Amino acid sequence: MPVLLAPEQAPTLQTLLANANILGLDCRPLETDNEPSPRIRGLGSLLSAGPEEISFLANPRLSHQLSSCRAAAVIMTEADRQRHAVADAPYKVVLCPEPYLMYALLAQWFDQHRLEGLAAGIHPSATIAPDAQVAPDVSVGPHCVVESGVRIGAGTRLGPGCIIGAGSTLGRDCLLHARVTLYHGVSVGDRAILHAGCVLGADGFGFAPDPRSGSGAWTKIAQIGGVQLGDDVEIGANTTVDRGAIENTIIGDGVKLDNQIMIAHNVKIGEHTAIAACVGVAGSTIIGKRCTIGGAAMLSGHLVLGDDVHVSGGTAITSSVSEPGRYTGVYPFAAHRDWQHNAAVISQLAQLRRRVRATEKNNS
Amino acid sequence: MPVLLAPEQAPTLQTLLANANILGLDCRPLETDNEPSPRIRGLGSLLSAGPEEISFLANPRLSHQLSSCRAAAVIMTEADRQRHAVADAPYKVVLCPEPYLMYALLAQWFDQHRLEGLAAGIHPSATIAPDAQVAPDVSVGPHCVVESGVRIGAGTRLGPGCIIGAGSTLGRDCLLHARVTLYHGVSVGDRAILHAGCVLGADGFGFAPDPRSGSGAWTKIAQIGGVQLGDDVEIGANTTVDRGAIENTIIGDGVKLDNQIMIAHNVKIGEHTAIAACVGVAGSTIIGKRCTIGGAAMLSGHLVLGDDVHVSGGTAITSSVSEPGRYTGVYPFAAHRDWQHNAAVISQLAQLRRRVRATEKNNS
Amino acid sequence: MPVLLAPEQAPTLQTLLANANILGLDCRPLETDNEPSPRIRGLGSLLSAGPEEISFLANPRLSHQLSSCRAAAVIMTEADRQRHAVADAPYKVVLCPEPYLMYALLAQWFDQHRLEGLAAGIHPSATIAPDAQVAPDVSVGPHCVVESGVRIGAGTRLGPGCIIGAGSTLGRDCLLHARVTLYHGVSVGDRAILHAGCVLGADGFGFAPDPRSGSGAWTKIAQIGGVQLGDDVEIGANTTVDRGAIENTIIGDGVKLDNQIMIAHNVKIGEHTAIAACVGVAGSTIIGKRCTIGGAAMLSGHLVLGDDVHVSGGTAITSSVSEPGRYTGVYPFAAHRDWQHNAAVISQLAQLRRRVRATEKNNS
Repeated sequence: MPVLLAPEQAPTLQTLLANANILGLDCRPLETDNEPSPRIRGLGSLLSAGPEEISFLANPRLSHQLSSCRAAAVIMTEADRQRHAVADAPYKVVLCPEPYLMYALLAQWFDQHRLEGLAAGIHPSATIAPDAQVAPDVSVGPHCVVESGVRIGAGTRLGPGCIIGAGSTLGRDCLLHARVTLYHGVSVGDRAILHAGCVLGADGFGFAPDPRSGSGAWTKIAQIGGVQLGDDVEIGANTTVDRGAIENTIIGDGVKLDNQIMIAHNVKIGEHTAIAACVGVAGSTIIGKRCTIGGAAMLSGHLVLGDDVHVSGGTAITSSVSEPGRYTGVYPFAAHRDWQHNAAVISQLAQLRRRVRATEKNNS
Repeated sequence: MPVLLAPEQAPTLQTLLANANILGLDCRPLETDNEPSPRIRGLGSLLSAGPEEISFLANPRLSHQLSSCRAAAVIMTEADRQRHAVADAPYKVVLCPEPYLMYALLAQWFDQHRLEGLAAGIHPSATIAPDAQVAPDVSVGPHCVVESGVRIGAGTRLGPGCIIGAGSTLGRDCLLHARVTLYHGVSVGDRAILHAGCVLGADGFGFAPDPRSGSGAWTKIAQIGGVQLGDDVEIGANTTVDRGAIENTIIGDGVKLDNQIMIAHNVKIGEHTAIAACVGVAGSTIIGKRCTIGGAAMLSGHLVLGDDVHVSGGTAITSSVSEPGRYTGVYPFAAHRDWQHNAAVISQLAQLRRRVRATEKNNS
Repeated sequence: MPVLLAPEQAPTLQTLLANANILGLDCRPLETDNEPSPRIRGLGSLLSAGPEEISFLANPRLSHQLSSCRAAAVIMTEADRQRHAVADAPYKVVLCPEPYLMYALLAQWFDQHRLEGLAAGIHPSATIAPDAQVAPDVSVGPHCVVESGVRIGAGTRLGPGCIIGAGSTLGRDCLLHARVTLYHGVSVGDRAILHAGCVLGADGFGFAPDPRSGSGAWTKIAQIGGVQLGDDVEIGANTTVDRGAIENTIIGDGVKLDNQIMIAHNVKIGEHTAIAACVGVAGSTIIGKRCTIGGAAMLSGHLVLGDDVHVSGGTAITSSVSEPGRYTGVYPFAAHRDWQHNAAVISQLAQLRRRVRATEKNNS
């Protein structure tokens, strides 16, 4: 459950809205009376928010929860205010054309407050190479290792146990959670968020068959490319992005990768593409801008996906896709016995089609 | 291969059975003679157990291995004793109505012996916040980090390199293997077993589209919920359980998660549900009690699975399931060329059905 | 992008070819003039290689890039030299019957050069048990933990944060990248390459239902087997190989595992088999020699795959396969609406077949 700020740290609603980096959002409390602005200690859902928290209505299917909401204030659109009888509600109404975005910004504000309480500076147990260039206000957690030739930009924070390989670079204001590993020669832009256990720059999976060996042995192809992340990239927990064979693997600006994803060598991902958990992208595939890839989807190697392609979860993409749109390929589940009966026909579909053709011919 | 106890540490069969925490199991050696009880140095399969080890018959298909078994003792049911000619066998027969459960308990006993040999106490290289509440007999391995406000219950052991984030709690008698990571605000019950590389509490994958950006950029939704594990939970290696967006992600009592699993934000898993490796569960899905989910299955988000639902490996569950039972959806594999022929019909199935209908009409 | 050697470190082409461990490859520069052998500072693709780098033609589809290639030298077959007009090319031609293998060996050579620059010796922050047997020239990185009874062979290097559990062994000339975890009782052969975050020896997923519990609770089966890796094995980032229940999980000589793979307990993998990323292999399955398993494939438990079986990416193998060959089972993807129409028929295939049969009967 989200932690509440101590009452003395909690802003008034008015101050909160003024400070929440909501520039550009036309957002204001609907002042229906002359009561003083309430203190807001946290943010909750319509169901869970208590009388010192702020909530929001973004999903129309939850509007029935308004009537029992106990929050101090609720963010909603003008249209929702008119649609629902909130005039007598015990909460303040905050009008905003984009309540979901507003919620995102407020959640950031409350979380930022927590982050500011964390320790700063270089922990004495960290190991930092003498020639690493670490900006003065960088935080480095316990047991981190920063190898030779690394450069880390201002405002960047490394959680406990992070390892930054030789010659890698981190931009400004990055947040590395615990146990992030960068191999050598990995370049990360500004404002990256890297989650625990992710690994950037491990070797791509490249081997040459060696005809001199009679046994089928593989010869390793050393992976001498790197990994290059743009700005505003987020990488999930235990996700892996392999280094390129010769050139770099490239993750564009604003790309968001969830947990447990595998990005193979030489892949290129366009700006603002978002990939859900457990996806695998095989080597040298190029993904366009603003794509979304659903969880546990799989992309074969050496493909090209255009911009604005949306892949459903669980789908195997085995050939290139140039047209924007949504693509799906999931075997429908059923009760096990029904599945058995129907799946038995799958291996005879070509034959079944021939039989239909023969019958049609017979009939014509 | 399992290590054998030194002969002087090995219990007699009689002592072993008395000490193996087998309360409630009606289990006893079949004393066919007056020989002294043999020393038992370890546990092996029917095929591998040597003359100082105990074995068991739980799978009827392995009963032919009884005739060549070299073990000191074999656990079996009374029915199996009568079915198979074991009267002249060189091993002692231990009668037990639940040989498989008995094997589980004996394996625990031998493994516990190993664990007791491990170092205890707080390793000097560990970093522990002054305000963390660590019970006196807790073990903390090298290079661990225990952050501010953490509470750790009695008997809990942390392997090397574990990181316990600010304000998180671990119950009593938990076993954390190496490099387990808890973010802040994660709550773990008693007797948890957490395997290497698992990550509890990383951010859920939540972003709001920002209509103010013309480029398709995403605004991060800070994830301010937590993760809450019940008692007797086991989490596999490199598995990730994300923190909730606002509320907690909840893992019930007795839940067992294998390796490489992804549990997204706001998921709830009911008591004693077991999930095999490589499964992904998308956000806000609720799984009932006593379910089993096969390896590499995938559950879409915002679903509800009832109690006692069993999902086959590799199946994508894309809608809610209320009835208990087994559900499957796996594309049958075949030789590649056969698959090509049959798969080509898949994309014309609706058309094929129409043709069958037309022919039927023609014929009637 | 690959780093270039400093000019004074760069070998001449002649020296490079002589030193690149290319024994057995009949490989030589085509000396068309009397110019001195150029210095080679690195290796690049036909498109990217600059005038101080060497490149290669291995894929015939890239031969059109020869005309604009700026490399100092290009490796190709005699047949390709004759096929393409390279007589007047600005680069030296290096003839080789196996350009791809040659590329692999040269990439190793340049990468080896980088590795030789790394720090050696035992870092003072590493924790090494007094009874561990560590060969004199072993490198142990910062914050590593080497537990009691471990043996490490000559020339082996441990990156930062590796943890070697009690009684485990590493052979000679292994390379462990950062944060590799071996539990107790794991045996690794010579020349292994283990990538960041991989976990060898976590508990297999084994539980016995406890009929004494009315609630569906599971009793843990302690996993007392180990993990045994042959020589020349490579394991990818965040891959997990579980320890056996009683016997060992076994990975044969020359096996290559990519990232994010899960190998369950008691699995056996034959020599020189290569498995791509995100594959799950369930318990007790046996995979033959020289198999290849495509990315995100899944193998059920207790199967036997013969030698030289090739599984396509995304395929679920649910029964044993004895014949060599390629096997596939992937649902073809389509535009979402087309998929919906066709998938709706899947659950009625058995019925559709009956209708076809009935029509055929009617017609005959």
